[in-house]
Amino acid sequence: MKAVAKLAPGPGLSFITAPIPKIGRRDVLIKVKAAAICGTDVHIYEWDDWSRKRITPPLIFGHEFCGDIVEVGEGVSSVKLGQFVSVETHITCGHCFYCRQGMGHVCETMKIIGVDRDGCFAEYVAVPETACWPWEIEVPAEIAAIQDPYGNAVHTALSADLVGADVLITGMGPIGLAAIPVAQLSGARRVFVTDVSEYRLALARKLGADYALNPKNEDPVTFIKDLTQGRGVDVLLEVSGNPGAIKQGFASLRKAGTASLLGIPSKPVEFDIANDIVFKSIVVKGINGRRIWDTWFKGQALLAKGVDLSKLITHKMPLEEIEKGLELMKAGECGKVILYP
Amino acid sequence: MKAVAKLAPGPGLSFITAPIPKIGRRDVLIKVKAAAICGTDVHIYEWDDWSRKRITPPLIFGHEFCGDIVEVGEGVSSVKLGQFVSVETHITCGHCFYCRQGMGHVCETMKIIGVDRDGCFAEYVAVPETACWPWEIEVPAEIAAIQDPYGNAVHTALSADLVGADVLITGMGPIGLAAIPVAQLSGARRVFVTDVSEYRLALARKLGADYALNPKNEDPVTFIKDLTQGRGVDVLLEVSGNPGAIKQGFASLRKAGTASLLGIPSKPVEFDIANDIVFKSIVVKGINGRRIWDTWFKGQALLAKGVDLSKLITHKMPLEEIEKGLELMKAGECGKVILYP
Amino acid sequence: MKAVAKLAPGPGLSFITAPIPKIGRRDVLIKVKAAAICGTDVHIYEWDDWSRKRITPPLIFGHEFCGDIVEVGEGVSSVKLGQFVSVETHITCGHCFYCRQGMGHVCETMKIIGVDRDGCFAEYVAVPETACWPWEIEVPAEIAAIQDPYGNAVHTALSADLVGADVLITGMGPIGLAAIPVAQLSGARRVFVTDVSEYRLALARKLGADYALNPKNEDPVTFIKDLTQGRGVDVLLEVSGNPGAIKQGFASLRKAGTASLLGIPSKPVEFDIANDIVFKSIVVKGINGRRIWDTWFKGQALLAKGVDLSKLITHKMPLEEIEKGLELMKAGECGKVILYP
Amino acid sequence: MKAVAKLAPGPGLSFITAPIPKIGRRDVLIKVKAAAICGTDVHIYEWDDWSRKRITPPLIFGHEFCGDIVEVGEGVSSVKLGQFVSVETHITCGHCFYCRQGMGHVCETMKIIGVDRDGCFAEYVAVPETACWPWEIEVPAEIAAIQDPYGNAVHTALSADLVGADVLITGMGPIGLAAIPVAQLSGARRVFVTDVSEYRLALARKLGADYALNPKNEDPVTFIKDLTQGRGVDVLLEVSGNPGAIKQGFASLRKAGTASLLGIPSKPVEFDIANDIVFKSIVVKGINGRRIWDTWFKGQALLAKGVDLSKLITHKMPLEEIEKGLELMKAGECGKVILYP
Repeated sequence: MKAVAKLAPGPGLSFITAPIPKIGRRDVLIKVKAAAICGTDVHIYEWDDWSRKRITPPLIFGHEFCGDIVEVGEGVSSVKLGQFVSVETHITCGHCFYCRQGMGHVCETMKIIGVDRDGCFAEYVAVPETACWPWEIEVPAEIAAIQDPYGNAVHTALSADLVGADVLITGMGPIGLAAIPVAQLSGARRVFVTDVSEYRLALARKLGADYALNPKNEDPVTFIKDLTQGRGVDVLLEVSGNPGAIKQGFASLRKAGTASLLGIPSKPVEFDIANDIVFKSIVVKGINGRRIWDTWFKGQALLAKGVDLSKLITHKMPLEEIEKGLELMKAGECGKVILYP
Repeated sequence: MKAVAKLAPGPGLSFITAPIPKIGRRDVLIKVKAAAICGTDVHIYEWDDWSRKRITPPLIFGHEFCGDIVEVGEGVSSVKLGQFVSVETHITCGHCFYCRQGMGHVCETMKIIGVDRDGCFAEYVAVPETACWPWEIEVPAEIAAIQDPYGNAVHTALSADLVGADVLITGMGPIGLAAIPVAQLSGARRVFVTDVSEYRLALARKLGADYALNPKNEDPVTFIKDLTQGRGVDVLLEVSGNPGAIKQGFASLRKAGTASLLGIPSKPVEFDIANDIVFKSIVVKGINGRRIWDTWFKGQALLAKGVDLSKLITHKMPLEEIEKGLELMKAGECGKVILYP
Repeated sequence: MKAVAKLAPGPGLSFITAPIPKIGRRDVLIKVKAAAICGTDVHIYEWDDWSRKRITPPLIFGHEFCGDIVEVGEGVSSVKLGQFVSVETHITCGHCFYCRQGMGHVCETMKIIGVDRDGCFAEYVAVPETACWPWEIEVPAEIAAIQDPYGNAVHTALSADLVGADVLITGMGPIGLAAIPVAQLSGARRVFVTDVSEYRLALARKLGADYALNPKNEDPVTFIKDLTQGRGVDVLLEVSGNPGAIKQGFASLRKAGTASLLGIPSKPVEFDIANDIVFKSIVVKGINGRRIWDTWFKGQALLAKGVDLSKLITHKMPLEEIEKGLELMKAGECGKVILYP
Repeated sequence: MKAVAKLAPGPGLSFITAPIPKIGRRDVLIKVKAAAICGTDVHIYEWDDWSRKRITPPLIFGHEFCGDIVEVGEGVSSVKLGQFVSVETHITCGHCFYCRQGMGHVCETMKIIGVDRDGCFAEYVAVPETACWPWEIEVPAEIAAIQDPYGNAVHTALSADLVGADVLITGMGPIGLAAIPVAQLSGARRVFVTDVSEYRLALARKLGADYALNPKNEDPVTFIKDLTQGRGVDVLLEVSGNPGAIKQGFASLRKAGTASLLGIPSKPVEFDIANDIVFKSIVVKGINGRRIWDTWFKGQALLAKGVDLSKLITHKMPLEEIEKGLELMKAGECGKVILYP
């Protein structure tokens, strides 16, 4: 089969011909229908610090995808041949302290597809049956392919009670963008968003943001306080990881509000615990991955209700043009980029 | 001032001229802008069993209303002259075990306006400042007048997590009807409703029900299971008090679901605790009144977001025609009836 | 191996010699160290209505037990040879709507050991690896054998916030008895219990009940209100299934309190929804089985903290004397009866 | 009456004779029975940065106290002459966005007794009736006088589910010390504490800490991981405000755990949001003051259950010796210091 791989340490990628993966007793083989590029793939492509420490070439990368099950191991019981599935990127052990209590998202020995094992920038991928999400509703392949970032958005947004809430989302990457319709259809009163890219702010408006603010042009804290009786938003969804956005986010949050943090600052930040957390009596929630499978069921129900992710998908191309997609990602001039193997 | 009163035990009402109420130090005088008729008012008018035990004539009745503050007691600090307010019907003590812990809706010595003290079918009403809801947004008088049943609907609907949930509302009186847009804008995936009145089902469709079912014509349990993978709805909002609807509601609810009960059966019902509660591991919540003021803030935010109650208001008339309104209520041929004093 | 079985429909049991069970790829074989008799075993022994409908002989019954793993299937990864384990009685599918969201206790296709498949009144039992609970702390075999009812007690008690709460437990069977120290060590202020058996009330006092009341002798509702400022208890744990106890329990519960129901009435009961649930704004929770594995982790932690179940175990005997144990159970003259195969 | 006051900006205090306070219509006059010294009083005495900005002399300071109501305003209805009460230090407005929703602890216009208005280092204090806590149980004056820090401890500890939890409390000032028995009686499995003062660690052991660790002598992170299967504690209660303790606390916390922060770092700290919050998916809660009156009811119930604060009180002296008490506080050689006016 054709595939895209990192063959040796260093920047770049290789188009290779690889054997179709062999599956174990409880695995399935999936023929990839559509895949999507994640920021993590850009890191692997560019071979940044994190990649150097984490990735062991050779590796077929890519982890956002959907496809048809074309082979099932003899011990498989929860899915079947021919089924169309999305895949949970995080492979959990199923029996550690966390997995046994519904917290698989922090599994003690989690392995990530396309990072710790071969991924989806290929014609076929082998995954454990336990990583498969068989749909109860019909969704297009492009939407089924981006359930990983959509799931991040759902997990982040639903970690707070959004009904009637004013919500600020800082950072309009794909996860932040996807969080907009999720928040809107989950009861948010108004959705404020911030980003420094006008391209991304335009996308945010298309996805339903009520107020898309560029901190280069205006102070979001003042803008928000003016519209919220001077109190601030009820909920902050921080998905940028940017220290300035984090500071503005907490300053925009009302007392006793909730801040859900998914963004990853590249290093420790200076943080005013006394004024931003203690005196304001706020709740901060660290958000990692997706609740398995609670988040998926919620995400599916919200798609059925009307969350429209189609505007999030700005580019589609054959797998062969992946480098074009990676460059778009680096430039920030895209929403999600879909690849067809 | 003119007013509508029950002057002596027995059916009927009287149009009277009464002195404008005197206010205490911490009271305000409200000039009624719009009032609405509640089912409770019909009971008082008809002088049913409950009224006989609870009501001590003479009494000006009516409790759903809004108006302008035209006089304030000298100790009043939270509202001011000229302010437009809705009023919380339940006057709480503020210092019992429940009031001190944010549970004023079950205050130990609660008094109800228009039941335990003079009400709003009049030109003026005196109420404690602590019963006033000054609006942060602009709302028409007709909507401001029905915050009591709307608040019931908000309290009932938001007692469960509705995001992505399939919801069944049994009973399409004004509270059930108001719960439809509340549920829809609070994240419900699909809203099923039941009632035996085609008039009410038509109103339900106007207010946004996805499926409005008449149990006389089809079995709602089968209908619902067919659309929910055989599992049933995630959330039941029971606002009818009808034993048959209660039975159908619990049968339609999936395992580990939530049932919120606001409807008042007129007497004890036979209930299958083993199969309807224990084995299914469901959660049942008794709903009374409104959370003071949590429900009001949520309700206001949802109105700001777009909950449209205008279709719920089917009739408007001068206070003088109240008996026409009461008859419409008895016939079930109306949504809310608004009165102008 | 020796075993106790129901060989044909009808009352009674048989001592048999059966082949040691064969295990599947993901099963383990457990050498039973200690087993315990459950009320369900009495039903099977007596062959009541429920048994007639549910049980298909021949069946080795019994489901409360612990033992050593003496053989593991080739696909087993979460436990290992020689490990001492307790066993979750409820075998869940792992992939239905409920199992995928941490609600295995209401799995759509649950099978029960000793009811739907051969059980533990034998020298050996085969179970899936996913049903094993390997201990992180040291516990005696007698305690490890009764984790099923102890887990019921933990699940019931911890379904409400007990910190500082006055708690009423109705029904002093083994589950109700076990709930006493669980409640005491989980922060309950005072634990009231009721039962009509003086034997059971004496056991309750030994296990730490503050007030053990016999409704034959005094009215528990009056007693409780006298000690709780007239308000009633904060939490009701109903584990009797008795209609009279249910009525007293709800009457003893304060407004906005929580009632957790595990007891199974043998048929529908008359229930005053208006006064017992709606007007009081209480929360009712149906409790079934145990949260898998949340309840087990909590239960283990509470044993480590000091929950002492030894007083709950009143009788120990060889498996051969099981009929003596079953008769003790019928007479209600015991706590838990331990059997050694 | 005699009183202790800050008469002008600068360090020190003055013993004065002041008029007995006049009360307003809804105030009560309390004859102080016992008062206690808080760290805040030391700041005012020393005239630190915070005091310079916040305090406007002349001011009678002190805010932890109890006493008898010796005079009531004509509008008072919730308490009565002769009643023995403790007092909530935080005077809330009762009608802002927060107060109206049970979040008085973050009232928009909160005033603090002994900081923003005259306090309790005096024979008499005037407070609003709404600040009074009339006891439902009997407690000694010394215990009733320290409900402010005890309430802090209860609020902090109960912000997480402690049942079966391993808990780390960093910082053994009076609040941290009081949190020990609160956690123990609220279901904690084991309580670990840290402090650099051996005096305080000895007090911690007296109050029931299972493991009292001095980070100068051993690494608490390693110690804790060794005893918790390598996972860490379930709950962190950070009451020190010390950057090193905060770092150790988060490092000791398991994934998906809860950190409750009451300690106030004197300036912003460097914080590793990615590793300490996001990837670990933890929940952080800012804790301020006490929930009014939820925390008080919980605290009262826990006192009734057996929380023993007597060991926390290390010194008792007449008001005249307050400077001795303040010096003990500065040296950290005390628990709570009680003053009798």
